[in-house]
Amino acid sequence: MIILGLDPGYGTTGYGIVKYEGTRFTPIQYGAIKTQPGQPFANRLCEVYQDVCTLVDTFHPDECAMEELFFNTNITTGIQVAHARGVIMLALAQKGLQPAAYTPSQVKQSVVGYGKAEKRQVMEMTKTMLGLSKVPRPDDAADALAVAICHGHTGRSKLWER
Amino acid sequence: MIILGLDPGYGTTGYGIVKYEGTRFTPIQYGAIKTQPGQPFANRLCEVYQDVCTLVDTFHPDECAMEELFFNTNITTGIQVAHARGVIMLALAQKGLQPAAYTPSQVKQSVVGYGKAEKRQVMEMTKTMLGLSKVPRPDDAADALAVAICHGHTGRSKLWER
Repeated sequence: MIILGLDPGYGTTGYGIVKYEGTRFTPIQYGAIKTQPGQPFANRLCEVYQDVCTLVDTFHPDECAMEELFFNTNITTGIQVAHARGVIMLALAQKGLQPAAYTPSQVKQSVVGYGKAEKRQVMEMTKTMLGLSKVPRPDDAADALAVAICHGHTGRSKLWER
Repeated sequence: MIILGLDPGYGTTGYGIVKYEGTRFTPIQYGAIKTQPGQPFANRLCEVYQDVCTLVDTFHPDECAMEELFFNTNITTGIQVAHARGVIMLALAQKGLQPAAYTPSQVKQSVVGYGKAEKRQVMEMTKTMLGLSKVPRPDDAADALAVAICHGHTGRSKLWER
């Protein structure tokens, strides 16, 4: 199963594509979609949309996942991120994919085994689980890979429950 | 000039299309895009997107406008509305339209002449300015028409400033 994890943003959207077979995760591709500042906000949304479509067309994920959106800090930024997240959900749904959503603590629990783990621990464990030589960069890509791993685990858990 | 006003939502998106010539507004069409509850949220976003595309293709607006998004009440609902608003901005930008955004008090100031006007006053004045026999329904459509009027006025102001 190929899983696409996404960490939505209007400036930077992290993505991570992993193959999940048995109990093993293999990284296929990861990185970040970056949009050009200084242009109309709606145009940045167009770029995010187009790039997510291209990712799906290129890597044909079977499933996809992203984090639930929480507004911890700046509400204006949060609203803009929600705009981008909506556009990403649209792109995925138009391609026949229903994005699963996980809370940050679900991702931490799944990757590190502890829902209140530090961000650094999540990144280190993501690196280890994917057999990478260093922590994925940028952070948005690492976050996207972590949520893809979380989705793999959760999918497996669901299977075990049957 | 044909102006499309929108009041974004994931369940109900109000729309109002008006013709603005000289100092006169004429209603062309107004109503609401409603999405079916009980289906995946991403599918509702697809419906909103598709229907906004259809509106633009049908009525060929020259300009479009919507209200700025504020989170006054339920933050979860606000996040979902922001998702829909992002999808609407995407649809418009893909059709070559850059949506203008106005604060609620700008809309009230523009329609009623008083930034702290009651919602009821805005609706009554919208009815009068458009020569309608009764207040437009649903409320989302009336709000969308009000923001379209606001955009017409503001555009005219800009013209006068040249």
